[in-house]
Amino acid sequence: MIISFASDNTAGAHPNIIQAISDANSGYAIPYGLDDYSNYSDVMFSQIFGDDIVVCFTLSGTGANVVALKAMLRPWQGVICADISHINTEEAGAPEFITGSKMLPIPSYDGKIRAKDLDIYLADKRVFHRVTPKVVSITQSTEQGTVYTPEEIKEICDYAHANGLLVHMDGSRIANAVVALDVDIKTMTKDAGVDVLSFGASKNGMVFGEAIVFFNKELSRDYMTMRKQALQLISKMRYIGAQFNAFFKDDLWLNNARHANKMAKYLADSLEGIKGLSVQKPYVNAVFVCMEKTLIEKLSKEFYFYETNPAIQEVRFMCSFQTTQTEVDYLVKRIKELV
Amino acid sequence: MIISFASDNTAGAHPNIIQAISDANSGYAIPYGLDDYSNYSDVMFSQIFGDDIVVCFTLSGTGANVVALKAMLRPWQGVICADISHINTEEAGAPEFITGSKMLPIPSYDGKIRAKDLDIYLADKRVFHRVTPKVVSITQSTEQGTVYTPEEIKEICDYAHANGLLVHMDGSRIANAVVALDVDIKTMTKDAGVDVLSFGASKNGMVFGEAIVFFNKELSRDYMTMRKQALQLISKMRYIGAQFNAFFKDDLWLNNARHANKMAKYLADSLEGIKGLSVQKPYVNAVFVCMEKTLIEKLSKEFYFYETNPAIQEVRFMCSFQTTQTEVDYLVKRIKELV
Amino acid sequence: MIISFASDNTAGAHPNIIQAISDANSGYAIPYGLDDYSNYSDVMFSQIFGDDIVVCFTLSGTGANVVALKAMLRPWQGVICADISHINTEEAGAPEFITGSKMLPIPSYDGKIRAKDLDIYLADKRVFHRVTPKVVSITQSTEQGTVYTPEEIKEICDYAHANGLLVHMDGSRIANAVVALDVDIKTMTKDAGVDVLSFGASKNGMVFGEAIVFFNKELSRDYMTMRKQALQLISKMRYIGAQFNAFFKDDLWLNNARHANKMAKYLADSLEGIKGLSVQKPYVNAVFVCMEKTLIEKLSKEFYFYETNPAIQEVRFMCSFQTTQTEVDYLVKRIKELV
Amino acid sequence: MIISFASDNTAGAHPNIIQAISDANSGYAIPYGLDDYSNYSDVMFSQIFGDDIVVCFTLSGTGANVVALKAMLRPWQGVICADISHINTEEAGAPEFITGSKMLPIPSYDGKIRAKDLDIYLADKRVFHRVTPKVVSITQSTEQGTVYTPEEIKEICDYAHANGLLVHMDGSRIANAVVALDVDIKTMTKDAGVDVLSFGASKNGMVFGEAIVFFNKELSRDYMTMRKQALQLISKMRYIGAQFNAFFKDDLWLNNARHANKMAKYLADSLEGIKGLSVQKPYVNAVFVCMEKTLIEKLSKEFYFYETNPAIQEVRFMCSFQTTQTEVDYLVKRIKELV
Repeated sequence: MIISFASDNTAGAHPNIIQAISDANSGYAIPYGLDDYSNYSDVMFSQIFGDDIVVCFTLSGTGANVVALKAMLRPWQGVICADISHINTEEAGAPEFITGSKMLPIPSYDGKIRAKDLDIYLADKRVFHRVTPKVVSITQSTEQGTVYTPEEIKEICDYAHANGLLVHMDGSRIANAVVALDVDIKTMTKDAGVDVLSFGASKNGMVFGEAIVFFNKELSRDYMTMRKQALQLISKMRYIGAQFNAFFKDDLWLNNARHANKMAKYLADSLEGIKGLSVQKPYVNAVFVCMEKTLIEKLSKEFYFYETNPAIQEVRFMCSFQTTQTEVDYLVKRIKELV
Repeated sequence: MIISFASDNTAGAHPNIIQAISDANSGYAIPYGLDDYSNYSDVMFSQIFGDDIVVCFTLSGTGANVVALKAMLRPWQGVICADISHINTEEAGAPEFITGSKMLPIPSYDGKIRAKDLDIYLADKRVFHRVTPKVVSITQSTEQGTVYTPEEIKEICDYAHANGLLVHMDGSRIANAVVALDVDIKTMTKDAGVDVLSFGASKNGMVFGEAIVFFNKELSRDYMTMRKQALQLISKMRYIGAQFNAFFKDDLWLNNARHANKMAKYLADSLEGIKGLSVQKPYVNAVFVCMEKTLIEKLSKEFYFYETNPAIQEVRFMCSFQTTQTEVDYLVKRIKELV
Repeated sequence: MIISFASDNTAGAHPNIIQAISDANSGYAIPYGLDDYSNYSDVMFSQIFGDDIVVCFTLSGTGANVVALKAMLRPWQGVICADISHINTEEAGAPEFITGSKMLPIPSYDGKIRAKDLDIYLADKRVFHRVTPKVVSITQSTEQGTVYTPEEIKEICDYAHANGLLVHMDGSRIANAVVALDVDIKTMTKDAGVDVLSFGASKNGMVFGEAIVFFNKELSRDYMTMRKQALQLISKMRYIGAQFNAFFKDDLWLNNARHANKMAKYLADSLEGIKGLSVQKPYVNAVFVCMEKTLIEKLSKEFYFYETNPAIQEVRFMCSFQTTQTEVDYLVKRIKELV
Repeated sequence: MIISFASDNTAGAHPNIIQAISDANSGYAIPYGLDDYSNYSDVMFSQIFGDDIVVCFTLSGTGANVVALKAMLRPWQGVICADISHINTEEAGAPEFITGSKMLPIPSYDGKIRAKDLDIYLADKRVFHRVTPKVVSITQSTEQGTVYTPEEIKEICDYAHANGLLVHMDGSRIANAVVALDVDIKTMTKDAGVDVLSFGASKNGMVFGEAIVFFNKELSRDYMTMRKQALQLISKMRYIGAQFNAFFKDDLWLNNARHANKMAKYLADSLEGIKGLSVQKPYVNAVFVCMEKTLIEKLSKEFYFYETNPAIQEVRFMCSFQTTQTEVDYLVKRIKELV
């Protein structure tokens, strides 16, 4: 396949992850998540987040978000989120389908919402003709490649809690935010007041498997049955546990993200100054660039990437743990030649 | 872990499957099932079932059953099935939750239903106070370790179709039935009139991943969005395609099942004649045995297996591709010693 | 139309109810249940059940049952009920569709379940492959024309609560049970430990409208939005409130039920001794009779009634507040002539 | 209660409707919509719309919209609608909850959408990460008191059908549009290409009851079971049929709407020229007026009406069949005094 900057999910898995799957492939294991690998994963999650959490593996990122929301919501309660959030636009209506709830979008040019934005829907709490807002969902790092500071997250959580709302964080790319901000993940999640985190892994080097981390443990009650009913349980869960154990070992997850972010910065820097290009400073591993339509068309024949906003001729180059400097150099070289 | 005869899902994956995952781990791949591995799987499925099918990978066996039913049903239509069928008893209500429908159980001592059993619910087709029967779901091989002959399947399909019903087959252990009956899989599914098949793989040596095979292609329309909404899509689908390609290569799937069935027969034969044991003749890879309560308790400390029917002190020993003759011999030895 | 003994819902409404609708038809009223008529209904319900309740009107009996269950359940939790209960057989799968849950049927020849029957499903509370039992639903009076004594109800409630279950009562014909047992309604519901009651009205003389009475008030939280989302809210709710006020005035609801029961007893007594008929003693307003097939066919041309069990040639004659002694006499006369 | 201009649903029912309920209250009737009154309603609907339709009564307006959408949609298909449409904002998430689908809102200042607006979502038809647009829902007359001309409706229907979409019309106030445009209802619905119509009645003088009119009869298949499952069926449906028969007799429905529209025009004309008021020309029975905050507050103590847009201090006065010229005069008088 041609070189891909389309998404971090066009990459393969990190070799250590494949090795972990292979190593786990011996003997018998209790199915459905009660195996030793999964149990050890719990220990590793606790080393990061503390003991008073419940970890629930899921199969996909959408699965993590949707099971988390299902645990937090009744069908007549709604989810406040950025209009361009993944749950609102890229999950085929799974959040509505599985929870029965309604997404309550907030206009956002940069993927972020602010505490005061919640006011748009807080008035609806008294109106029984509308779903009652119950959850605020924020994405870290966002779909637009931006990040929330811990202070911003805390402000949202405080305001949400003060108004009877719970906070969900879609952390499908949280590792990229952790290394970008150089802030401990616990600080920006549990300590900031987040109730439930979708902890992303497959975009950052795993084959498959994500985790829901319940900081608000009350919400995790019945998660075993709830997860099975939501089709997020396979029998041989040991292979997810084993991957996570390798993912955390020697900070692989952070190193993967650090490399992806670094490649994005390197790409942005390399594109800087090229005539006709407008390059957005990358916070994490995505580089948004506006360029001429004809250039987009030519590049599309040689590289795999997304046109994120045709109206302003914006494309996105996404770097992953697998992206090499050589690949970036080659992309930049071709852009310079094709301009 | 102790030796397990609990289920074929306590086994690991076949080494060829692990190797296939490892081999697929290079370069970039289009995500969400549009990769080369998945495309090649389509070819392999067509070699088995013919060209006029649609194959839809899912993540879990419950996922395969439920997405298949979702494609076949509207919420006010019901599913006729054996009372002890997996969809009715072991899927945490996922069939009801995801399809909105109702399961319509038929009493079955052996896991099988007969064409004439459908009459129980066919009268309801005129009564709008009840869900309208729309699908018959049968399991091959059954939860009770029995098998349907192709003739029995055809009879059910003919009668179902004559009454406006569709037929779903839960084939989580279909390979075991194929080798047990020594009948081509196409003969017992597509040719017999089955509309949609859940083709099982993870209980037969894969890490994860199952397939829905739509013989009635009209029902597969929109399956890409439907599957995503039902949380059965991961981004890196290449790893499922790659596993299936290894699964079919050199008939690995049939050889795995053949071995499991053989071990079950060997176990049953070895247990025959032991005083106090009542051994049910195995058709596939499960051996059901009735024994004294105290023996069950003692064995439970040394082996992992299920008590399937406490009322008659029945336990189930399930063999898998991984079960060895040594393990069976050891189990038999201990039973003889503990009797 | 021919004389109907088919169901109490083939009757019209009591004249007082029609008058109440007419009387409510003046001036403006706040819509959606916040009107004076509805407020006064709350007072009347409190006079019967005490102050610490929440009353929620619904549009239909199925609506009452389903909204009640929706308030009591999460989708991964199940409802233990008699196999022949209305929620399991006559509501078109609405309980499953609206709650996402699964009905857990208990075999019952007489429509009643016993406390010890719950044991069938209590073991499932530890098994995450099955829905977790959470609600027991009993019908008073039952679909088979029987009644629970207050002691039996209390025994079920105590055992349910001791095992973490909630109790719902489908009281679509509760008035008939109240007069049959000559026991205060509060005694057989709230005082016996019932958590939520579907209080029936339309089968007992109203045009439409039922009520959910939450004795467990915690479960009623958000009922306004929940009910609207479940399509059980009309704008002009004053017409339901007004009906209920007339329904309670001068014990109309009890007098209606008393008359229906009396007619059923009169019918049963009159049929007693007729050759070839097997008459079941009526507890409430339904008379179950077994008779020759040819007699059923002849009667069907002259009267409207249901064949409830073709296997034993059982038919049901249902009396209502509207049934007259003349109608009963005529039915008996024709049966005698046609025998 | 104080005089209400809050909504047409704060009015009572027309006396002819009450009389019809009373007249229907004799003898027995087949329950669940198979009675003579309902049958006669079918005739009356056919006189308006022609023979090749299917009419399905529902209990509430939300019920009509939601059952209509349920018939038109699978859960992975979406509904394009105006952002301020009733289904998107005022139905407590029932459309999402009952259909499992997602609403796809189009920004609209006047409640109307245009054919070309559909383009916003048509691109999503190829993207399986998003719900597939399947239905366009328009409101006639709109929530903002505007109307679609038959030509505009036809243009939307033609464009929708050309792109594989179906068209639903929320006609909760369609009678007001019919008299406002002086166009035959069949012309603006069936003849213009609408597939399914929610035909409103309770806002125009009925106690309760609405009708879904299927012009696309294929979509009505199974409507009896579907409706029951969606909790839109009561046993004594004769009282809805009887109301509709009175509703159509001597054009009561059109006369009611004509009066409401006339009162709105009279109110708007009377308010014209009052200092500090900005009066929007009414198309149907709603008058939108911007006025000073203090005036709104004072008026609120004497009249019942809604503040529709606090940002621009806009309130809505809604007239109904019941509104009298005296009531309008009194409102105008008080406004003049309080200005």
